[in-house]
Amino acid sequence: MTSTAATDLIFGLTRVVGLPALPGAALGPDDIAQIVTEADRFCTEVLLPDALAADRAGATYANGVVKTPPTYPPAYAKWVEGGWQSLSAPEAHGGQGLPAALWTAMVELGMAADTSFMLGPLLTAGAIECLVHYATPDQAVRWLPKMVSGEWTGAMCLTEPNAGSDLGVLRTRAEPLPNGRYALHGQKIFITWGEHDCTDNIVYLVLARLPDAPPGSRGISLFVATKLKDDGSRNDLRCGGIEHKLGIHGSPTCVMLFEGAEAELVGEPHRGLNAMFAMMNNARLGVGTQGVAHGAAALRLAEAYAAERVQSGRIIAEHPDVARMLTEMRAITLAGRLLALETAICVDRGDAAQARLALLTPITKAWCTDRGVETASTGVQVHGGMGFIEETGAARILRDARIAPIYEGTNGIQAIDLLVRKLAKDGGAEMRALLSEVRRSADARLHAAADRLATATALVLDAQGRDADAAQSVAVAYLDAAGWLLGGWMLARAAAEDEAAYGALSEFYLRRLLPRCAGRVAEIEGALAA
Amino acid sequence: MTSTAATDLIFGLTRVVGLPALPGAALGPDDIAQIVTEADRFCTEVLLPDALAADRAGATYANGVVKTPPTYPPAYAKWVEGGWQSLSAPEAHGGQGLPAALWTAMVELGMAADTSFMLGPLLTAGAIECLVHYATPDQAVRWLPKMVSGEWTGAMCLTEPNAGSDLGVLRTRAEPLPNGRYALHGQKIFITWGEHDCTDNIVYLVLARLPDAPPGSRGISLFVATKLKDDGSRNDLRCGGIEHKLGIHGSPTCVMLFEGAEAELVGEPHRGLNAMFAMMNNARLGVGTQGVAHGAAALRLAEAYAAERVQSGRIIAEHPDVARMLTEMRAITLAGRLLALETAICVDRGDAAQARLALLTPITKAWCTDRGVETASTGVQVHGGMGFIEETGAARILRDARIAPIYEGTNGIQAIDLLVRKLAKDGGAEMRALLSEVRRSADARLHAAADRLATATALVLDAQGRDADAAQSVAVAYLDAAGWLLGGWMLARAAAEDEAAYGALSEFYLRRLLPRCAGRVAEIEGALAA
Repeated sequence: MTSTAATDLIFGLTRVVGLPALPGAALGPDDIAQIVTEADRFCTEVLLPDALAADRAGATYANGVVKTPPTYPPAYAKWVEGGWQSLSAPEAHGGQGLPAALWTAMVELGMAADTSFMLGPLLTAGAIECLVHYATPDQAVRWLPKMVSGEWTGAMCLTEPNAGSDLGVLRTRAEPLPNGRYALHGQKIFITWGEHDCTDNIVYLVLARLPDAPPGSRGISLFVATKLKDDGSRNDLRCGGIEHKLGIHGSPTCVMLFEGAEAELVGEPHRGLNAMFAMMNNARLGVGTQGVAHGAAALRLAEAYAAERVQSGRIIAEHPDVARMLTEMRAITLAGRLLALETAICVDRGDAAQARLALLTPITKAWCTDRGVETASTGVQVHGGMGFIEETGAARILRDARIAPIYEGTNGIQAIDLLVRKLAKDGGAEMRALLSEVRRSADARLHAAADRLATATALVLDAQGRDADAAQSVAVAYLDAAGWLLGGWMLARAAAEDEAAYGALSEFYLRRLLPRCAGRVAEIEGALAA
Repeated sequence: MTSTAATDLIFGLTRVVGLPALPGAALGPDDIAQIVTEADRFCTEVLLPDALAADRAGATYANGVVKTPPTYPPAYAKWVEGGWQSLSAPEAHGGQGLPAALWTAMVELGMAADTSFMLGPLLTAGAIECLVHYATPDQAVRWLPKMVSGEWTGAMCLTEPNAGSDLGVLRTRAEPLPNGRYALHGQKIFITWGEHDCTDNIVYLVLARLPDAPPGSRGISLFVATKLKDDGSRNDLRCGGIEHKLGIHGSPTCVMLFEGAEAELVGEPHRGLNAMFAMMNNARLGVGTQGVAHGAAALRLAEAYAAERVQSGRIIAEHPDVARMLTEMRAITLAGRLLALETAICVDRGDAAQARLALLTPITKAWCTDRGVETASTGVQVHGGMGFIEETGAARILRDARIAPIYEGTNGIQAIDLLVRKLAKDGGAEMRALLSEVRRSADARLHAAADRLATATALVLDAQGRDADAAQSVAVAYLDAAGWLLGGWMLARAAAEDEAAYGALSEFYLRRLLPRCAGRVAEIEGALAA
């Protein structure tokens, strides 16, 4: 049986964001339905049943060896066998070349089933994308086919103990070797799936400094080191430990020690951050999609519980406040789902939608992940006391959800990115274009909210010119206001396509959740008032 | 050194809610400062240093025996030695007879230091209060002095597997014994501190049915069973296991099995729920205070981290969005702190403030605990990636905070209580009286927000009369709107007393957080629009 999430994804891809009309995609509604249904089956049958036990088992570390939960290696083998890793990878490297929007649907379903597992494939996909753009043909042919098949995984090694959001100060060194390669020396932290037992080999993308590097962010180069060298021997890198975390217990978050690991330069010297930034939009979309997934996972558990649990003579799903919570969870999750697809389709539209993609990405990343945490928390609340007990699973989703507003650039950084790099860069032109589209909606409430956001846009842009600190102190409120508006717009578009299926949910959102847009604008006005 | 929380508590008690002016209290500002400072020292020196390790160790269960974290029994001995349990207990039973508002200050400080530990004393205080009102003189003299000293703890045994918020369906039986006592048979769940190793004896307040009990909530009686019988032998009750929970790992949440345990009836037969409801206001205030404490604990960690962590050349506390998060945490925590004290002083005012207490209690419970979770989550966010790592401690506070919106009546139940039992009962008269007081504030923004809440009050009361389900579906939004207004009112009163110390924080709240009141009212209007 197809899940509600899959049904909504098929509808969203086909009828809301217009994937079949994408130039060159040649994907009909039936193709889309078939692929999403298969993805749903994989996630529901292979990942979901063991997810809670995997959380309980967690990833473990001993003497440099990391074991993922015992169900992960066989599940990962099925992932490879199903060819899922190759979904949207280029055909030139062995991929299926399908649209990014379809991969986004896969990511949502996988993350909802088991976030810890799905992080491995997500990180590999990010590494693939980077190498597709920056590897030489010789490098590409040696690394990419095995990453695209899933035979090898990829890991991104950026953060260091004193270099988180500020990568300019990182200290890992790359010493030239006589053979034209480099020896990496340094310590990286927070490396997702940095070591594991699901594949033999791992491809590490590592940011490091060449000996002649200028200080700061313009002196950082990108390298690739593999766990196994070309001759099959171990490279000089190892896992020094894994973190004890609030959530995603099945995903090993590694300290990686590079102790002279042989590596190759990828791309131009000192241009490593550019390579990272180039793929960051997609990585941020992937994390935003996690927020949607956490809402969906929380909703699945909450609906099942509320349909069974009887209190005062009726199931709690019929109690007005519980019904309100469930409807809120549904409306917010669907809004986020459609917003993530709208962002993903911009990736597929390429150059024509580049400005729109740049604008939507931080909103999708931050708004969807903040809503993911909230919705997971509401899911706990629906369960009452049972929600606090780990065996119910609702608490696990909240724990897992909490990382998404933090990694891949904190949500505060997304908000500042939106303000400084997106709005201020074009004086708000792309945002005004987007608001014009929103205003084309027949709904007066959406129209009014778009006007409020236009006011806020002018206010924050003006403030950014006069007092950047003041402007940045309302950046999160501004991003949030935009998210509430765009979520309502997506639901209204869904309802316009299928009133019977989505009309009630859209109306609920426009009545009860859209006011949060104006509420956030009022906070901005209050903050920036003379 | 006195903590910020203690300084604010002393100021709040002395100058905002007017404890020194309380008739009959005979407590001067210096007495208040001395007691709060001592309480702060106890919490900071005895509880706080071991709290994170205690969470890691957790409570453990084996063969009916429960061990709390190893630091708890010695800390509890110091709690007893300091006489803290007796603070607000009646002098007739060995207590110090101090105001409830002072006890509330103690609870905040203790909960901020170690929630798991402090739950033991809090539950004991609840049991004491119930017995003070309902025990016979003979019962009182046998139980109360040892509970007031802390030599014995108390546990509340209400919930059963199918009876949570709906106690009317509970099934534990009380069979009369020839000696005039009763044998209890049944299973209770979610019993906080139901078994532990900090005292020899435990006093259980148990809801159960007599053989001739009518069905439903009017057939429930209150009993007391002690772990050790009068002759020192073990009673027939035992712990069947403890829950694996999201948070409060050091607090044993027990399944309690009553297998013919000898018990005494307390109060009238079939009137057990009334006894429970009589003490519920204070218990709910105690949980609301936990929400404040979680915000305070999160703030303490976040401030320390943000003052040390350097990014892009300056400490993150100076980055505009981090500064905004810290100020929001401070403003919300102080607003909640003062609101909890305002509620507590109503307890001390007795009959004269009964209606006000009834109105404020659900708001304080739900608004402060929702804010506690949010503020703890913001604290995690301030830490960035380190916030997700358990060793930082920020994640523990979020895990601990998440139970408070659930227990002692979920926040949804608080909202319905506010609407149905408080507002509808007097047609909104007490709320209107409160809003008149708020409107006396000089601040135009508060005045306007009070007008908005008055509108919402009329709306929900009207809806409750026509369509109770529709009204109850906005009850949470209504309570939340009231909370945001009252929080602003409390801060404005603090600023009026000491502009230098509290003016900036009050202004921040009125500009940036008070709009959330109107935002919630807009949601109610949207929901109830024709």
